[in-house]
Amino acid sequence: MKTKWDQLFAERTRNICGSQIRQYFALTERPEVISFAGGFPSNEFFPTAEIAAAVSGLMQEEGNQSLQYSSTEGSMELRALIAEKMSRQNAQCNPENIIITDGSQQGIDLLSRILINPGDPVLVEEPSYIGGTSAFRSHGGIPVGIKMDQDGPLPLSMEKTISMLITEGKQPKMFYTVSNFQNPTGVTTSYERRLEILEIASRHNIIIVEDNPYGELCYEGEIPPSYKSLDREERVVYLGSFSKVLIPGIRIGWMAGPGPLIEKAILTKQSTDLCSSSLGQQLAYRLSKEGFVEKHTRKLIDLYRRKRDVMIEAIDHYFPPDVEFNRPRGGFFIWVNFPSSYPTSKELLELALQNNVAFVHGEGFSNSGDGGTHSARFSFSQPPQEHIKTGIKTLGNLFWEIETRQSLKAVEKV
Amino acid sequence: MKTKWDQLFAERTRNICGSQIRQYFALTERPEVISFAGGFPSNEFFPTAEIAAAVSGLMQEEGNQSLQYSSTEGSMELRALIAEKMSRQNAQCNPENIIITDGSQQGIDLLSRILINPGDPVLVEEPSYIGGTSAFRSHGGIPVGIKMDQDGPLPLSMEKTISMLITEGKQPKMFYTVSNFQNPTGVTTSYERRLEILEIASRHNIIIVEDNPYGELCYEGEIPPSYKSLDREERVVYLGSFSKVLIPGIRIGWMAGPGPLIEKAILTKQSTDLCSSSLGQQLAYRLSKEGFVEKHTRKLIDLYRRKRDVMIEAIDHYFPPDVEFNRPRGGFFIWVNFPSSYPTSKELLELALQNNVAFVHGEGFSNSGDGGTHSARFSFSQPPQEHIKTGIKTLGNLFWEIETRQSLKAVEKV
Repeated sequence: MKTKWDQLFAERTRNICGSQIRQYFALTERPEVISFAGGFPSNEFFPTAEIAAAVSGLMQEEGNQSLQYSSTEGSMELRALIAEKMSRQNAQCNPENIIITDGSQQGIDLLSRILINPGDPVLVEEPSYIGGTSAFRSHGGIPVGIKMDQDGPLPLSMEKTISMLITEGKQPKMFYTVSNFQNPTGVTTSYERRLEILEIASRHNIIIVEDNPYGELCYEGEIPPSYKSLDREERVVYLGSFSKVLIPGIRIGWMAGPGPLIEKAILTKQSTDLCSSSLGQQLAYRLSKEGFVEKHTRKLIDLYRRKRDVMIEAIDHYFPPDVEFNRPRGGFFIWVNFPSSYPTSKELLELALQNNVAFVHGEGFSNSGDGGTHSARFSFSQPPQEHIKTGIKTLGNLFWEIETRQSLKAVEKV
Repeated sequence: MKTKWDQLFAERTRNICGSQIRQYFALTERPEVISFAGGFPSNEFFPTAEIAAAVSGLMQEEGNQSLQYSSTEGSMELRALIAEKMSRQNAQCNPENIIITDGSQQGIDLLSRILINPGDPVLVEEPSYIGGTSAFRSHGGIPVGIKMDQDGPLPLSMEKTISMLITEGKQPKMFYTVSNFQNPTGVTTSYERRLEILEIASRHNIIIVEDNPYGELCYEGEIPPSYKSLDREERVVYLGSFSKVLIPGIRIGWMAGPGPLIEKAILTKQSTDLCSSSLGQQLAYRLSKEGFVEKHTRKLIDLYRRKRDVMIEAIDHYFPPDVEFNRPRGGFFIWVNFPSSYPTSKELLELALQNNVAFVHGEGFSNSGDGGTHSARFSFSQPPQEHIKTGIKTLGNLFWEIETRQSLKAVEKV
C-alpha cells in the first residue's frame, strides 16, 4: 500500500506557508535580472582572505575544539565577548544570559516555540519582517500589526490593539520589532517612541523582542539606545547576528535575555539541532577578538552607504514625484509607496520582471487584510552601483508610462 | 513591574526537559575523569589540515558563494552528490528528495514538527536515542517503546503495541529507528527483521524514520540493506549526517524522503533558520567530491575498531562475568546490563564518578516506566586506548567489590 502522506501531516503543518520572496526566487535569480528583491548582504564585500587565514590559524591552534560539537548554549568565549560588547553599549549582560543561535532567525523560532500557544496573538510592526511572522505562524501564533510612521510603531495603535485583543480574551505576550533600519521599511524607532512602547509593554506584561541585524550598519547620525539598554524589568529579549557585519554562511547569531528564558531556550535548542556550528562560532570569535569585525563593519558602512545614495539619487531622478519613498539612515531597505491609481504592486512586479528588474511587492509583509497592495521593498545591498542606476531607470520609465497612459485616458473621458 | 516570566511560557514548553547526559556534563567533563559518557566522535581524528586546505581552496575559487546564505533546501551540488551516493547504495533518490539539515538532529526535529500532533504516540526502540525522544516530546509526541533483541526491534512487540494503541484510539504515525549500531545499544537490525518491520508498517500506514549516523563506521562484516533501499511505498524517511564520518562542528546532515514531505520540510526549515551553513555545505561537498571523506572513513574504521577492541577486551578481562554486554560490529556504543542484585545504574554512576570514571546510566534511554535501571551506555569513541583500559579496570574493581560484599552478606545470613 502506497504511503498516504496527506493523512499524516500535523495540524500545525497546515499553517506553514512559503515566503513570497522564495516563490519569486526562480524569476529574480535569472542572471539577466537586476534584483532589488533579496535582502542578502553583498557577496562582493565578503572577507574571503581573512576567513581563510582565520580557519588556517584555528586549525593550527585549536582545530580539534572548533570541529567538535559545542555545548548547546554555545562557546563560552564567544558568549563572553558578545556580553562584553553589549554591556559596552549599555545593554548590561552576562554570558549566562546569552545563547548562540543559527542566525537570529533561530532566535525568533526558539522564542516562538517557547512562548506561543496556538491562537496566541503576537504584536508585530505593520509591515513586518516575513521570516518573523512566518515563524510565529508556524507555531500557531497570529501576527497582529501595529501601525507605524517615520518614528516607528505608533503607541496609540499599540494601545488600541492591546485593548481590542484583551476584550476578545486574548492577552498578547510579545511585541516583535526590528528597531533599527527595519525590514522592510527602513524605519528606525525614535528614542521617545522606544520609551513609550516600553511603558505600554510594562503595563500589560508584554515582552519586547528586539531583533537588531542591521543596527551596526548606520550610514548617518547615530541609532537610539536599544530597548535592551532601556529595560529595567527583564522585559526585553535581544536578537543579534553576525550575518550582516561578517558573513551569513556560518549561521551565527545570538539571543540575550533573562535567565529563565535562556534556560528554556537551551533545552529547546538541544532537541532542535544540539548546537550551532563550532567552526562558525570560533570564526566569529577569532575575527571579533582580533578587531577585524569592527574594522570590516566600518568598511561595509562606507560601501553600503554609497549604494544607498546611488539608489536614492536614481529614484529622485527617475521616478514620478507621486511615487513616495523613505530615505533610511542605515540597513538595506527602501520602502516605496505607489499612488492608489497605479496597478497593484504585485502587478507592477510582473511588469518589472518582463523588463528584467525585480523587487518585493508589499503584501507579504502586511498582517492586516489588505495592506501592502501599493507598496514594495527595494533592497540596495546586493546589486552593483551601475545596476542600481539602470534598474531604477527602467522602473522609472515603467511608472511614467503608467501615469502617461492614465492621463491620456482621463483626457479621452473629458 | 518586573516581567512575570512564569506566566508567559507556552504549554509545549512544559514538556521540554534536558537530557540527563547534559546534566552530568559538568561532572563528566572534569579533566581527571575518564569518560565513556559522551557519544562524540574523537577529537584526535579530526582532519584539521585537510579542513584548512579545503577552506583555503574554497575562498580562492568560490569564496563568495560559500559565505552567502544558501537556499533553504541546501546546495544543489551537495544534494546531487548525496543522492548519487544513496542511489549507489540502492536507496534510489533525486536531489529534489533531499533537504540539507543542521546535523541529522534537525531532521528529527523538522519531522516531529511536521508530523506530530500533541498526544500522538511515536513508536521508538526500547531503549532509544535521547535526542530523538526529546524532540518528539518537545512537539507533544509520546514515545512508546518497542522491545528489542540482538537482531533489532521485535515484530511481535511492534504488532502488540500498535494494536493496543489503536484500541485506545491512537493511530501511531511513525516508527523511529537507528538501524545500524544503535544509540544506545549498538544493535544492528537484521535484514529479515527489516523486512518484517516494513511489512507491519505498510499494513498500518506507519512511516519509518531511519536515522543512520553510524552506518558507515562498520568494523566487521557488512550492514544489511537500508530500510530506504527496501522501500517500495515512499514509506521511509532517511536521515544522514557528516558528523561522524567527517566532523560535527559544521552541523551538516540531510533528510531524504518523498516529495510532499520534503516540500513541507523546506517550508518549515525556512522559518526555523533560513538555511544550513553554506561554509559547512561547501566543505562537505568539496571533501566528498575529492574522495577525502571516503578515505577518511576507512581510516576512522581502523581507529575506532581498535578502541572498540580495547574496551571489549578490558571488559572481558576486568568485569565480573554476570555483568552482560554486547559486542557491536560498528558505531560508538556498548550496552551493559548489570545483575538485578546490583545497585541501580544511577547509583553505580555516582560510585564511578567518585572514582573518576563516567558512563551514562540507562534510565534516560528508556520509554517504559522502569526500564534501564540496571543498564548503562559505554561509549568507546572519545577516550584514548590507555584510558579505556584504565577506566574499565577501575569499574571492574568497583563491580567486584559490590559482588564480594554481597557474597559476604549472604554468608553472614547463613
